[in-house]
Amino acid sequence: MSLYKKHDTTINKAVQALHDRTFYAAFPEHPAPAVYGETADADGQAKFKASLGKKFEELKQANPEGWAGQEESPYLQEPLKISYPMFSVKTLIDRSQTAFHQWRKVSVHDRAGILMESLERVKGRFFEIAYATMHTTGQGYMMAFQASGPHAADRALEAIAAGYEELQRFPNRALWDKPMGKFNIQLNKEWRPVPKGISVVIGCSTFPTWNSVTGIYGSLITGNTVIVKPHPGAILPIAIFVAEIQNVLAENNLDTNAVQLGVDTFDRMITKELAEHPAVKLIDYTGNSAFGSYLEALPGKVVFTEKTGVNSVILDSAEDIDKVAANLAFALTLYSGQMCTAPQNFYIPASGIKTAAGNVSFEEFATKFTDNVTGLVDNPKAGPFVLGAIQSKKTCDRVVEAETLPGKVLLKSRKIDNPMFKNARIATPVVIEMDAAKKDTFSKELFGPIALLIKTKNTDESIQLAKEMAMNHGAISCGAYTTDPAVREKIADEMSLAATPVSFNLTGGIYMNQNAAFSDFHVTGGNPAGNASFTNPEYVSKRFTWVGHREPVKA
Amino acid sequence: MSLYKKHDTTINKAVQALHDRTFYAAFPEHPAPAVYGETADADGQAKFKASLGKKFEELKQANPEGWAGQEESPYLQEPLKISYPMFSVKTLIDRSQTAFHQWRKVSVHDRAGILMESLERVKGRFFEIAYATMHTTGQGYMMAFQASGPHAADRALEAIAAGYEELQRFPNRALWDKPMGKFNIQLNKEWRPVPKGISVVIGCSTFPTWNSVTGIYGSLITGNTVIVKPHPGAILPIAIFVAEIQNVLAENNLDTNAVQLGVDTFDRMITKELAEHPAVKLIDYTGNSAFGSYLEALPGKVVFTEKTGVNSVILDSAEDIDKVAANLAFALTLYSGQMCTAPQNFYIPASGIKTAAGNVSFEEFATKFTDNVTGLVDNPKAGPFVLGAIQSKKTCDRVVEAETLPGKVLLKSRKIDNPMFKNARIATPVVIEMDAAKKDTFSKELFGPIALLIKTKNTDESIQLAKEMAMNHGAISCGAYTTDPAVREKIADEMSLAATPVSFNLTGGIYMNQNAAFSDFHVTGGNPAGNASFTNPEYVSKRFTWVGHREPVKA
Repeated sequence: MSLYKKHDTTINKAVQALHDRTFYAAFPEHPAPAVYGETADADGQAKFKASLGKKFEELKQANPEGWAGQEESPYLQEPLKISYPMFSVKTLIDRSQTAFHQWRKVSVHDRAGILMESLERVKGRFFEIAYATMHTTGQGYMMAFQASGPHAADRALEAIAAGYEELQRFPNRALWDKPMGKFNIQLNKEWRPVPKGISVVIGCSTFPTWNSVTGIYGSLITGNTVIVKPHPGAILPIAIFVAEIQNVLAENNLDTNAVQLGVDTFDRMITKELAEHPAVKLIDYTGNSAFGSYLEALPGKVVFTEKTGVNSVILDSAEDIDKVAANLAFALTLYSGQMCTAPQNFYIPASGIKTAAGNVSFEEFATKFTDNVTGLVDNPKAGPFVLGAIQSKKTCDRVVEAETLPGKVLLKSRKIDNPMFKNARIATPVVIEMDAAKKDTFSKELFGPIALLIKTKNTDESIQLAKEMAMNHGAISCGAYTTDPAVREKIADEMSLAATPVSFNLTGGIYMNQNAAFSDFHVTGGNPAGNASFTNPEYVSKRFTWVGHREPVKA
Repeated sequence: MSLYKKHDTTINKAVQALHDRTFYAAFPEHPAPAVYGETADADGQAKFKASLGKKFEELKQANPEGWAGQEESPYLQEPLKISYPMFSVKTLIDRSQTAFHQWRKVSVHDRAGILMESLERVKGRFFEIAYATMHTTGQGYMMAFQASGPHAADRALEAIAAGYEELQRFPNRALWDKPMGKFNIQLNKEWRPVPKGISVVIGCSTFPTWNSVTGIYGSLITGNTVIVKPHPGAILPIAIFVAEIQNVLAENNLDTNAVQLGVDTFDRMITKELAEHPAVKLIDYTGNSAFGSYLEALPGKVVFTEKTGVNSVILDSAEDIDKVAANLAFALTLYSGQMCTAPQNFYIPASGIKTAAGNVSFEEFATKFTDNVTGLVDNPKAGPFVLGAIQSKKTCDRVVEAETLPGKVLLKSRKIDNPMFKNARIATPVVIEMDAAKKDTFSKELFGPIALLIKTKNTDESIQLAKEMAMNHGAISCGAYTTDPAVREKIADEMSLAATPVSFNLTGGIYMNQNAAFSDFHVTGGNPAGNASFTNPEYVSKRFTWVGHREPVKA
């Protein structure tokens, strides 16, 4: 068996990076632009196009019980007509159980090597994955490449490293030697990290790899077998990851069913049947809150969720309000507000925002903000690429309905032209002014490019509302602008109690939506937006059980 | 504020001991007999006696809303007539919330110092706690001293050390410096371990300190405030711990309500009201499975349970069967089978047990085992002290009922004399032979001195039954006797999958019931006997949330 010793240095650096939380300290070579080869983009695009209308035959899952696939491109508004092998839940579980008893006995070092080798293989397919992601999620090309490719691989590596460390947290063996006065009691003790069993990873339609690889790699490194249940609308990107893991397993003569793709269709979803199966012990999920809460309540399962939240921006004071407006307009527009970290509720004191250049009124800021949105979406070199396309038709409906919310429409949603995809499903942001009294309206996620500018009495009320939203309805991100250190600490402290990370005073090329692997804990697990965090120690430690055995030392 | 720098070395050694898992490597001085002073025992007994019939006025909890107490000595079968201050759930919660916002801001170093100082103070009261434990739980004097005193303190220190390490797992601050080609994005990042809020620790009647201090100290070190809800039948031992923590808090001018005792009475239990209160975020529980499962299902709470299980002994082969019989007879008799780790189901092949001296038949072993039990309980220098007394009358009823179970009564339960306490509630072990087909009967915990010798087809069936019991009904311990390495590994592997630690081939002065702090994970959290483990990293990491904030470095 190949042990992939070539990855030893990387895994050790990755464990170090978990603790540094800077990433670039452990991987100084990483900021250098990765070289994928001159033809990599064109080759990837060609490979993606060649897969359209065909069977996806890369998976090493024998004897499909059918073939199906219902993906549709938000850019083309046409089906991709790719079909995937289909298996009954019984087949998936049976195969997973068989593979489990082999995979659990592979050493942690070999598991790490195999999984890291799979990431190495996936690296060669980043462009193909990028096009697959664009044409399933509607993400712009840049985001589709980064989020589904290198950034997802970073998150996967982070989960491998976290598991690798946690599995070795305690010794395999130790001599317990207790002096009892006239004699010693000596026991040979051993501790085994025992995987839980079968893990089901349920994907979402907007980030099919980034949000799923942590669960897949986190479960695999800890010795569990995995059934990946992708969203029926976004299969291909994660299917490529699964195929590459299976390739490496096969090369090592291991049962490729250690990870399986379990595809279903919109009309016959298998998620509940899978999740409720007694053999399934671990469930990872990204998606709506109702289904997430149902999963969390299933007895006898360890469940990791990323659900929905209401992300707030607290505007108190700023050095340069124009830079603030530009930054927030971009944060809202990026992938048309379809990121779980996108801002929704902007709290602005009725008295305005204090700045170095004097007070900026609510109305003045609103104008600057909507002007920036309009300027961005109407910039032909930026707008279509930043917006991307709308993944689900329901989001378009929600944007239209938003104009009927109890407030003043400051900016209507429009359709703009995407020069490359004339049929792209597009909706530019809608911006609505709302009073802080309309809490019922802004107390829920309005998924998509929808921004509410909420007029508050003062910053204290803004903080109170942002905290309340996070505690009661969840939050994954929060933006805050203040030049006052006391206000800053108050926001930091209060939002901490609501388990919500705050990005302070972001301007320029960094946005509250972005979460970096090995540094930002994505979702904290401490509020209703989700019960897990990428990747804290609990994210991997809950996937196995420490069991100790002991026996007297032979005299 | 006193920072208790004198404890710095100890906490660092304790963190080391967590990883060594030998304890005595980090604390080589510890095996030396602790010196408590010549009069310590008599002083402690006197202090205990002086507390009888009086108000317990040590707690720094102002304005009691009443006084009550219903403890009763299993040795005297008389009420202790100690009364404790009573508070409404509202008062307890309000005070805890106020204290929370101070306690959470005390640094982890200072929290560790304060908590370790409280253990130092408790050390001076070990004998008093021992008598309090005897006369609430019925434990023998030796166990009452060790389990409620030094061993509980070790477990508390272990929880402090685990929290101390976990809270410092990631840096408080770091510079995230991402080269972007022509410029760098530089963010100052900070990470805060944010406590969850109010923690309720629900005690049990048999181990009122050992089973509760881990939750108390685990929650306090991680910045949560704690309400201790003792079992109405076993309050005094843990009340002394709470009083000593409050003393140290007061000396540091901290709100003593960071830890409160919330006493109730059998006729008006406040446990549900406390547990369901929205401000309560953490619940630690030791007790019956039905209530534990109710707690685990409460939404929005992090719950740590130790419930009940069916502990098995697998008898395959042995060097010296007499030593095995003696060891197991002691394990069953110790504290009259009222330990959560006591053996219940003994699986013996119908063909007997292979030994160095030839085959020992089922019947021969049964005779040796019952003879050893009888010899032990009838030894006036050992029997009464090993047996202790029966905590609850219900246990006596269960022992009587056991004789009607579908099997052959090999040894009847009796009452023996305790020379020191003629009214002691005593029941010696009952031993019943049962066929492996009577699974319905032996598939549940029969709490108390009840042993079932179950005749199996062979060792494979024994293993299968032990595993099935553990997976379906929970198990906290398992004993196994085999001289065959292949059988040993099969047992180790199969019981690992049922998340049950196995003690192999114990003879002499060490028993499967015993679990040592800093070495044995007590309850694994991986089977229905409980969802938590003393003290794995998860046991403390679930008590707080990592929240990261970030801000661009000022140019």
